[in-house]
Amino acid sequence: MRAIPGTPFDPVEDGDKLKEECGVFGVTGVSDAANFVALGLHALQHRGQEAGGIVTYDPEQGFNSARRFGYVRDNFTRADVMATLPGALGIGHVRYSTAGSKGATAIRDVQPFFGEFSMGGAAIAHNGNLTNAAALRKELIERGSIFQSSSDSECIIHLMARSIQKNIAERIKDALRRVEGAFSVVAMTRTKLIGVRDPHGVRPLVLGRIGDSGWALSSETCALDIIGAEFVREIEPGEMVVIEGNKVESTRPFNQAASRFCIFEQVYFSRPDSILQGRSVYETRRQIGVELAKEAPVEADLVCPVPDSGTPAAIGYSQQSGIPYAMGIIRNQYMGRTFIEPTDAIRNMGVRLKLNVNRALIRGKRVILVDDSVVRGTTSRKIKDMILDAGAAEVHFRIASPPTAWPCFYGVDTPERSKLLAATMTEDEMRDWIGVDSLKFISLDGLYRAAGEAAGRDPKSPKFCDACFSGEYPIAPSDKLAEGFEMKAAE
Amino acid sequence: MRAIPGTPFDPVEDGDKLKEECGVFGVTGVSDAANFVALGLHALQHRGQEAGGIVTYDPEQGFNSARRFGYVRDNFTRADVMATLPGALGIGHVRYSTAGSKGATAIRDVQPFFGEFSMGGAAIAHNGNLTNAAALRKELIERGSIFQSSSDSECIIHLMARSIQKNIAERIKDALRRVEGAFSVVAMTRTKLIGVRDPHGVRPLVLGRIGDSGWALSSETCALDIIGAEFVREIEPGEMVVIEGNKVESTRPFNQAASRFCIFEQVYFSRPDSILQGRSVYETRRQIGVELAKEAPVEADLVCPVPDSGTPAAIGYSQQSGIPYAMGIIRNQYMGRTFIEPTDAIRNMGVRLKLNVNRALIRGKRVILVDDSVVRGTTSRKIKDMILDAGAAEVHFRIASPPTAWPCFYGVDTPERSKLLAATMTEDEMRDWIGVDSLKFISLDGLYRAAGEAAGRDPKSPKFCDACFSGEYPIAPSDKLAEGFEMKAAE
Amino acid sequence: MRAIPGTPFDPVEDGDKLKEECGVFGVTGVSDAANFVALGLHALQHRGQEAGGIVTYDPEQGFNSARRFGYVRDNFTRADVMATLPGALGIGHVRYSTAGSKGATAIRDVQPFFGEFSMGGAAIAHNGNLTNAAALRKELIERGSIFQSSSDSECIIHLMARSIQKNIAERIKDALRRVEGAFSVVAMTRTKLIGVRDPHGVRPLVLGRIGDSGWALSSETCALDIIGAEFVREIEPGEMVVIEGNKVESTRPFNQAASRFCIFEQVYFSRPDSILQGRSVYETRRQIGVELAKEAPVEADLVCPVPDSGTPAAIGYSQQSGIPYAMGIIRNQYMGRTFIEPTDAIRNMGVRLKLNVNRALIRGKRVILVDDSVVRGTTSRKIKDMILDAGAAEVHFRIASPPTAWPCFYGVDTPERSKLLAATMTEDEMRDWIGVDSLKFISLDGLYRAAGEAAGRDPKSPKFCDACFSGEYPIAPSDKLAEGFEMKAAE
Amino acid sequence: MRAIPGTPFDPVEDGDKLKEECGVFGVTGVSDAANFVALGLHALQHRGQEAGGIVTYDPEQGFNSARRFGYVRDNFTRADVMATLPGALGIGHVRYSTAGSKGATAIRDVQPFFGEFSMGGAAIAHNGNLTNAAALRKELIERGSIFQSSSDSECIIHLMARSIQKNIAERIKDALRRVEGAFSVVAMTRTKLIGVRDPHGVRPLVLGRIGDSGWALSSETCALDIIGAEFVREIEPGEMVVIEGNKVESTRPFNQAASRFCIFEQVYFSRPDSILQGRSVYETRRQIGVELAKEAPVEADLVCPVPDSGTPAAIGYSQQSGIPYAMGIIRNQYMGRTFIEPTDAIRNMGVRLKLNVNRALIRGKRVILVDDSVVRGTTSRKIKDMILDAGAAEVHFRIASPPTAWPCFYGVDTPERSKLLAATMTEDEMRDWIGVDSLKFISLDGLYRAAGEAAGRDPKSPKFCDACFSGEYPIAPSDKLAEGFEMKAAE
Repeated sequence: MRAIPGTPFDPVEDGDKLKEECGVFGVTGVSDAANFVALGLHALQHRGQEAGGIVTYDPEQGFNSARRFGYVRDNFTRADVMATLPGALGIGHVRYSTAGSKGATAIRDVQPFFGEFSMGGAAIAHNGNLTNAAALRKELIERGSIFQSSSDSECIIHLMARSIQKNIAERIKDALRRVEGAFSVVAMTRTKLIGVRDPHGVRPLVLGRIGDSGWALSSETCALDIIGAEFVREIEPGEMVVIEGNKVESTRPFNQAASRFCIFEQVYFSRPDSILQGRSVYETRRQIGVELAKEAPVEADLVCPVPDSGTPAAIGYSQQSGIPYAMGIIRNQYMGRTFIEPTDAIRNMGVRLKLNVNRALIRGKRVILVDDSVVRGTTSRKIKDMILDAGAAEVHFRIASPPTAWPCFYGVDTPERSKLLAATMTEDEMRDWIGVDSLKFISLDGLYRAAGEAAGRDPKSPKFCDACFSGEYPIAPSDKLAEGFEMKAAE
Repeated sequence: MRAIPGTPFDPVEDGDKLKEECGVFGVTGVSDAANFVALGLHALQHRGQEAGGIVTYDPEQGFNSARRFGYVRDNFTRADVMATLPGALGIGHVRYSTAGSKGATAIRDVQPFFGEFSMGGAAIAHNGNLTNAAALRKELIERGSIFQSSSDSECIIHLMARSIQKNIAERIKDALRRVEGAFSVVAMTRTKLIGVRDPHGVRPLVLGRIGDSGWALSSETCALDIIGAEFVREIEPGEMVVIEGNKVESTRPFNQAASRFCIFEQVYFSRPDSILQGRSVYETRRQIGVELAKEAPVEADLVCPVPDSGTPAAIGYSQQSGIPYAMGIIRNQYMGRTFIEPTDAIRNMGVRLKLNVNRALIRGKRVILVDDSVVRGTTSRKIKDMILDAGAAEVHFRIASPPTAWPCFYGVDTPERSKLLAATMTEDEMRDWIGVDSLKFISLDGLYRAAGEAAGRDPKSPKFCDACFSGEYPIAPSDKLAEGFEMKAAE
Repeated sequence: MRAIPGTPFDPVEDGDKLKEECGVFGVTGVSDAANFVALGLHALQHRGQEAGGIVTYDPEQGFNSARRFGYVRDNFTRADVMATLPGALGIGHVRYSTAGSKGATAIRDVQPFFGEFSMGGAAIAHNGNLTNAAALRKELIERGSIFQSSSDSECIIHLMARSIQKNIAERIKDALRRVEGAFSVVAMTRTKLIGVRDPHGVRPLVLGRIGDSGWALSSETCALDIIGAEFVREIEPGEMVVIEGNKVESTRPFNQAASRFCIFEQVYFSRPDSILQGRSVYETRRQIGVELAKEAPVEADLVCPVPDSGTPAAIGYSQQSGIPYAMGIIRNQYMGRTFIEPTDAIRNMGVRLKLNVNRALIRGKRVILVDDSVVRGTTSRKIKDMILDAGAAEVHFRIASPPTAWPCFYGVDTPERSKLLAATMTEDEMRDWIGVDSLKFISLDGLYRAAGEAAGRDPKSPKFCDACFSGEYPIAPSDKLAEGFEMKAAE
Repeated sequence: MRAIPGTPFDPVEDGDKLKEECGVFGVTGVSDAANFVALGLHALQHRGQEAGGIVTYDPEQGFNSARRFGYVRDNFTRADVMATLPGALGIGHVRYSTAGSKGATAIRDVQPFFGEFSMGGAAIAHNGNLTNAAALRKELIERGSIFQSSSDSECIIHLMARSIQKNIAERIKDALRRVEGAFSVVAMTRTKLIGVRDPHGVRPLVLGRIGDSGWALSSETCALDIIGAEFVREIEPGEMVVIEGNKVESTRPFNQAASRFCIFEQVYFSRPDSILQGRSVYETRRQIGVELAKEAPVEADLVCPVPDSGTPAAIGYSQQSGIPYAMGIIRNQYMGRTFIEPTDAIRNMGVRLKLNVNRALIRGKRVILVDDSVVRGTTSRKIKDMILDAGAAEVHFRIASPPTAWPCFYGVDTPERSKLLAATMTEDEMRDWIGVDSLKFISLDGLYRAAGEAAGRDPKSPKFCDACFSGEYPIAPSDKLAEGFEMKAAE
């Protein structure tokens, strides 16, 4: 799963893309839940490619679980695996490893987590990150709990085991009132499918209807589409839904808080065909391109996306600027990042495995490249090299997000702050370091406008969590502060 | 590798795309030929996804070979495999299976083929199809040759074994003068890298320079890019090049014939970042969209490609028509066509595994869908269903090639004639069968114009092989005629 | 790992052999503990073939664990696996599945089990069976422990987590004082290797010396031989040893109890090259044959073992009786129990896959077959069929253990009582059911004599646990009694 | 499949055992030939462990073939593999690699070989070695044949392809009249099962009857037993049988020659439960032990076999000498020769993985060890070390064959002559080199007597091929003589 030395190019592996750490999915009221969950997880694969797991419950077979490394399509398509997952109720999870973790993820870190309680079993799948997990874990171990994983999410199941409530849904409430941070949780008992979103609603979670009798919970709407489910509504920040039979019961177990949905879901994480806040993610990204063209125009011959995530913004930039849109960089659809590098060294071999410049098109042209973000900047340099090798006359980078200057503690894997290009350089310094003719990022206000806030960002009460750009953290990262992380000084 | 029942959608598997059957690649004069060949084959993977093989020669280790099912990236990236392929000279091949063949391809059908002759060994890799292979095979078996494969290409190596020439290059000439059909061949001896194109030049073959001392032969220029080689020129129709050390010797072993390059390479087979006849394939395809917008305009709100092959023509159509280009259909980059279909049947599940409609964007819109071709039409119907399910107001199909009405016998896997939609229906009948508001194909003249023939197609002396559209076969398909295939009546 | 329908012969799989459920092994003070443990487990493979696991500790890498299904030789010989297990201290475990368990063993049932406590981690490997595990498990779950496995052994680690002792060795004592049943435990902390045997010493455990600085704990001495260790002594019933550096500290944490070592270890479980109570197991088994020849003589031409477990007793029987020893049944050393049975049914195909009669030798002969035990009797019938098919004149069975009439609850997998042939039939009825000319079992007194008790069995104070023969259980099987198991009525 | 450095002990891998290179098996007239062939090959696995293949013919599916590395039980038990092999007629082959070959066997070297001729296909499986294969191969290549393998057996199928006979059985005769050496061939056409033995009958081949309608051909009778077939008779030297339906037609295509069956089949290759020349192989080997005890008596306490091949002779030695037979060395039935050697080196680790001394039994005893042969002598030294380490008082080796002083060219893999201990040392020198108290080999006359020739060996007309002992080669090894091999000087 890892690049071998000599083929170093992979923006995601290199830490030059932020990585969503998880996707969650659950269904009830269908004849064979596991197949639905497999399809749902496949549609959410972009949220976590390293591993996935499914738990189902069947009255005769009890709870069953399968957790595997690798793509959903390679594991949860096998008849032998799926035959072990009977039942009408099931949940699943896809995950990335956490870059900071020591060593590789073990299979025991793969969710859903399962616990057998005196009133029956329960399984949970968690998207997000708990900011007080280290403190909780220490306390639980001292009281005799045995942890199986290095995952912060395991705290939830131990807190549930310790709860004195007689009912699993109540135990989930008990447990989640103890945790801090970002969480969209999908859980199941023998009869209930349960969904919860943290009070700020940092991570997404939506409800869907399957025919007349089934329900689905999903990180994104694109996973409802694949199973032919109808999108009903978003689970609201701070809301818990308990689904049993045809009944969906909604409660608010937490103290009220301001909604702070992750703005990077709009920029990069969510799939362009998902719907967020009533609008196509694709359309929001195209609008970012429109705003960017207004904020940062430049004379050029072609607007080219860095495939594939820069495409919608590049279309928007082209439409606003009138400069023709073109596929100047072609992505190899078979990918491949582990070839053995020939001893006759090939310049930029890593990037060539995934991308190729349309040389006959680019030669002599002034090219605007539109990318979604700049994290460490290493990818941008390699792409610039490739474009210049092909004979471009000028290269202008336009970035569909503001400079990424702060780490995320709410479920996104970010390099440490010192590795973030924007934490150490000005925009001009970055332009020179990357080596392009111009480099412009969209402003935070522009991004808010594109995301539907016509007035831009309200600094008193921003509508999104934008800590990675602004350094303003809506939830105090208590474990990290204990480790010595320094917040931005108040202005 | 195959779709299981219940997940039937795959335009390529379903025979609803024409399939290129092969890609060939060879290098000499580098320190580790196998790694270069692996990279080259990776770049040519779109020409054959079922299997691949590499042969190399090393003075100490002799000839070595590895042939595997599956993607290049999964086989020829493994250190244990590559360690068995030492040497500075090597060739490789990627292939599809032939749909018409009985049962699956066996590993013994995977090229390159190797033969040990009294003057030493030779290996060959063949892109194309021999139209007199059945007759040759019968004759060779009667004379005592033992065939190992069901491949028509194996005839070449047996004809070489039977040749009385003392020199392998001469034996190749002997053999290729006996065969009929389309062939771009890359071959190797212990010291020579050899490339040959049939007299009509139906399949592509190009020459590249690696640094100061190496050479490459490749089906397409995109594979030169990946290894950092410089594109020198196309091998000409009827030309044979023998490369030894720094010397490239060119001869013309065959009778002169008119050049008839496959026009479907321009439309679909070749990668958009390859260069054909001095121009970017992407640019030719964009130009097809421009011509199509002129020939078949329609009022609409959005121009959307059927991903990914319809994209360049859709861009051209949008630019010519002024109707905005949009990503109305999103392709799942993790693919997956073998999920187990839930018993609660999901409408159009197969297509949902690969494509999803951008519902929030499409709803209520008049949509132009641009696709590269219509073969059996089954895919077009499923995509139309999906678009209408999402609430589109109108659906208009525009096709970047003329109606495909005749099978190819020169190395492309085509359904039998009766399965080709255009062989049995008029354009209007096809529109009704697919169920769209309008359906238009580019004209053959329009296609020639987009491909650089400003005057359109010269019916006396067409510049391309366009038999799949016109039914005019430049080389008589003698085996097929013997089996009873009926050519188009002379007009 | 399982016989498929149609190839039903496997005495072990069929429940026609008693199965030892586990072997344990540990080392400290060597440079690479994992390789030593792998060798030790390989030598103990006969005690558990389904799965195995190793845990090691290294000051830099912490605790590491690998648990796998299948043979030690197939898993713990792989460089990639062993590289994950650094350190000078390690323990391991091999196991069978428990026949009575619902479904197959999951990997999470494979030992050693590991727990992270506030004072550091610990791992344990357990051979034996806890007779009050169900009650303990219920209590622990009610108090908030989350069980990962269906194994009774997991109770030990949760009891340790709940202990208020500050030191892991003390926590082990706390935990083991709560459990009932049979246990030979090997455990480890970051610095200590620990061995414990239950008060009755039902299962074996021995101490070995590796060179000048290392120590080993093993179920049997044969595993000391493979690593070149010197056999020091048996751990005594009720003893706990804590090894740190060169110091071996011995304590007696439990109340005193009578030694009741499992007599079936002498008959069948232990390897013939192991040493028990100062004597070669082989020699004890040969002596059983001598006793059997005295107790149950018969006129015959040949004494043949049922390979391989009947061999030592057959040698003894031949030596005592003077009837020539011969290999009348040959075992296929490549084994194989999963062949597809041809539709032209082959009589006794299952048994033919493993055994073949030496037809030219057996024809017309009166044959004594010596086997170690009769459990369900199905194997004996099949072997008798084979011998008669080959033309034997007479078949006499001599069995190297008394009739097996009671289940074991101390770590041996036994069919339920109603399936034990000797629970429902007299010796004569068994003879007729199997269909042989005579059938004789050694007496319990004879077995004790062969095992070194010259006076035979003392009914007041038997030296061994012989519950499977006598129905006298030295430790009350409390979980089973709660389930309704009926003990033998007092006489 | 290979020992890794550091675990060097494997008498077979080390070239310290002679290796039979092949076993062949065929059936006709059963409903599912492949399953019968799989069982037959499993019973012949001792004749070739590296790879195996099966070809079957079905009127609807034609010829099908599967060839695999590894044990029969691991490949030809898989439903997916066997489903590809339909039909009532089939043949199979198991093989060792040839030690002398450059590099590992490729899958294309695995038999049966198949050829498509103008009158239909045929497959052949060959046990033995052709002594003029190199010359034939050169000639065939010059005439245009393309060889796929490095196997000498492939010549046969090319000679068949070149034959002008109209009938495949006649083509086999044509081909086999051109070859020299040892061959037991099983072949098949679409309707016929064919068996042939070379004029000297060096390798075995037997005929069996399956029920009323089926027939089998097999290298040994033990493979008839496993499928429940009745042993009919041996195919005679120089005989060809053609089986079609219920008819077995016998012809003699070759010039008459003296029968020279391989005497090493009696000593080691054949399974002890097979019947050769009307007698159990086990009984012949036991008789070798009897002769050896007469020829080479010694005072001792125990007679122990070197397991497993020395067992029958050890039993005979014990019975003749009156010295008790004992299992002094125990073989690990799970084998394993690829463990990673701990850095704290373990003395004789390789041998410990397979064998363990019964220490408590051996200590202080005078031990006679009976082994089947001494080839390079390395194994004997290691076993002697182990026995002395365990405290034996004296070690006496008795060998059940004469000194192996000459290589075999008829299908047995032998080290080159200079590596054979007996080619360079006298018996006394060997004793000292191995380091034992005494070492005695059976005489050639004694061996003949044990094999049923009461008068011993007739030097004028020996009944067996004993070239490995005597240096008298019944068939001139022409390829080897051309390479410079020096025959024994005439005396």
